[in-house]
Amino acid sequence: MSPLNHQIRLAARPSGRAEASDWELTTEPVPSPGPGEFVVAVAYVSIDPAMRRWIAASPFYSAPVAIGAVMEAGAVGRVATSEHAGFAVGEYVYGGFGVQEFARSDGTGVTKLDASLAPLTAYLGALGIPGLTAYFGLLDVGRASAGETVVVSAAAGGVGSVAGQIAGIKGCRVIGIAGGPEKCRWLVDELGFDSAIDYKAQDVSRVLGELAPDGVEVFFDNVGGEILDAVLSHLARGARVVISGGLSQYDEDQRWGPSNYLELLRTRSSMTGFVTPDYADRYPEAVAELAGWLREGRLVSREQIIEGGVRAFPDALRMLFAGENLGKLILAVSDLT
Amino acid sequence: MSPLNHQIRLAARPSGRAEASDWELTTEPVPSPGPGEFVVAVAYVSIDPAMRRWIAASPFYSAPVAIGAVMEAGAVGRVATSEHAGFAVGEYVYGGFGVQEFARSDGTGVTKLDASLAPLTAYLGALGIPGLTAYFGLLDVGRASAGETVVVSAAAGGVGSVAGQIAGIKGCRVIGIAGGPEKCRWLVDELGFDSAIDYKAQDVSRVLGELAPDGVEVFFDNVGGEILDAVLSHLARGARVVISGGLSQYDEDQRWGPSNYLELLRTRSSMTGFVTPDYADRYPEAVAELAGWLREGRLVSREQIIEGGVRAFPDALRMLFAGENLGKLILAVSDLT
Repeated sequence: MSPLNHQIRLAARPSGRAEASDWELTTEPVPSPGPGEFVVAVAYVSIDPAMRRWIAASPFYSAPVAIGAVMEAGAVGRVATSEHAGFAVGEYVYGGFGVQEFARSDGTGVTKLDASLAPLTAYLGALGIPGLTAYFGLLDVGRASAGETVVVSAAAGGVGSVAGQIAGIKGCRVIGIAGGPEKCRWLVDELGFDSAIDYKAQDVSRVLGELAPDGVEVFFDNVGGEILDAVLSHLARGARVVISGGLSQYDEDQRWGPSNYLELLRTRSSMTGFVTPDYADRYPEAVAELAGWLREGRLVSREQIIEGGVRAFPDALRMLFAGENLGKLILAVSDLT
Repeated sequence: MSPLNHQIRLAARPSGRAEASDWELTTEPVPSPGPGEFVVAVAYVSIDPAMRRWIAASPFYSAPVAIGAVMEAGAVGRVATSEHAGFAVGEYVYGGFGVQEFARSDGTGVTKLDASLAPLTAYLGALGIPGLTAYFGLLDVGRASAGETVVVSAAAGGVGSVAGQIAGIKGCRVIGIAGGPEKCRWLVDELGFDSAIDYKAQDVSRVLGELAPDGVEVFFDNVGGEILDAVLSHLARGARVVISGGLSQYDEDQRWGPSNYLELLRTRSSMTGFVTPDYADRYPEAVAELAGWLREGRLVSREQIIEGGVRAFPDALRMLFAGENLGKLILAVSDLT
């Protein structure tokens, strides 16, 4: 009996939140690599807010995931078989392998990982796209510098938790916005945020006015919606609002434009969007610096790992949008050991 | 009988559009200058979109105009009497003289005008705050450069008409958005815009998609609301959205956040607010360049002058918000000749 490859495919295009019935579990034989190809045994899959956009009818960066296609996902794994001169069996790799146990690849967009530097899961967290998004968004787009007040939304998530920690390392005063007392305590007690606002229990605008009476120089926003509006009303002059994501806006029927956007005019501020892969040339320098902070214990890469294999994917995605995760949400697919 | 000073004062704070009943006409003796002061005979008063903000309950830049106070306004006039060593009788000046026939001043914020360079009214138009707003917004904030596609909203207004013409002078392709066929013809036939979209008759987003299939590099926005949303959906990569004003947003009960703001992320674009007086140090260079273009006939400063004195102020303001003006709207207060 040949080994099997379990996969999660998109069965229907959701209109609001994705439901279990929007996904289908399929089984195929494990693929064999053709010439110039290799096959990866997937260990961990990244559960990303952007996934909601990838399955939306209107493409955002690129074409949407087709009905019947394997769900796209960033993942880490190990080369299982290879007909590719550049990738040897046993090497650890990151790539867009999708929500499946085995993926065939010609190496496009695949990077090799140094498993001795950090646990494999860190390459989906602080050393992966979330960490790189935090790094370039905060430092390049937001130009955060010592002494400034930085606010981060979805601060207990994969990107926000790293963005806030980098701000602290750089000497900024850091305020995190997150949902629930557990997350807020974690931000302050474990990650060194100066303070945290529980948006589920507190009036964000009022508390922010107390915590930052002189205004906010950098807002690293992963959420949009009412939280963006609240922070816009507390900008310092010349503030930088970094649009890293819009977690609250990915369900297309819940669009909320920031009605306080004219605060940009009053405070002479800017709101700027960015896309992490535009910085691909500079990933090595960023990973080196992030890995250094990890090693020194100044940066915590927290991953919340969901067990259960690809079958657990629909529930993991639901958890993400329900805001139930602490740190980067990851799905464990196969045990490589 | 001593000469009289007719004034328009704020009688009530409007909640939506300002009505005639929100204003009061008052009469006082013409003031006399104290030591270090002078009195200006006001010739022309600028009718500005920002006036709606100045009378709003929630201050924006500064405290709102108080109930019972003379309505604030930028104006040009001639020094009528003077006890100030720096301002001689007969000199032409610009300042925040308010909606009244005579204003006392200690010279704060007052600039002298060269009436030989251009008609006095041009100092409320292309050579005044509207022209300076267009100049710094387009060139400094928007960084418009030759070959780029520039879109201007409220393009037939005081600021927009100059912004579009400067973009043309700089070699950009210019698309104006205005209300009605007369304005649109004027933009293309008289001001040299490459094309114009009539937002009252046309679907802005659809037409913009046809006119600018490769996207918009600079959007100079005076309006906000649905027009901002429409243009956001046609940004080129790395576009600059310049928030010069939000004409549609000044009635506080009609707030509309740009629900397409996540396009900033997709296109790696920025949206930046600015305030013209921040550039005061550089006004002389800008006025010199604008005056040069005026003299060469490359820039048209069109002012629409409302007669009737201060009494006509409420109706002039209504015209502005109804979008009935072509070019900069100005109220003629006194004949200085």
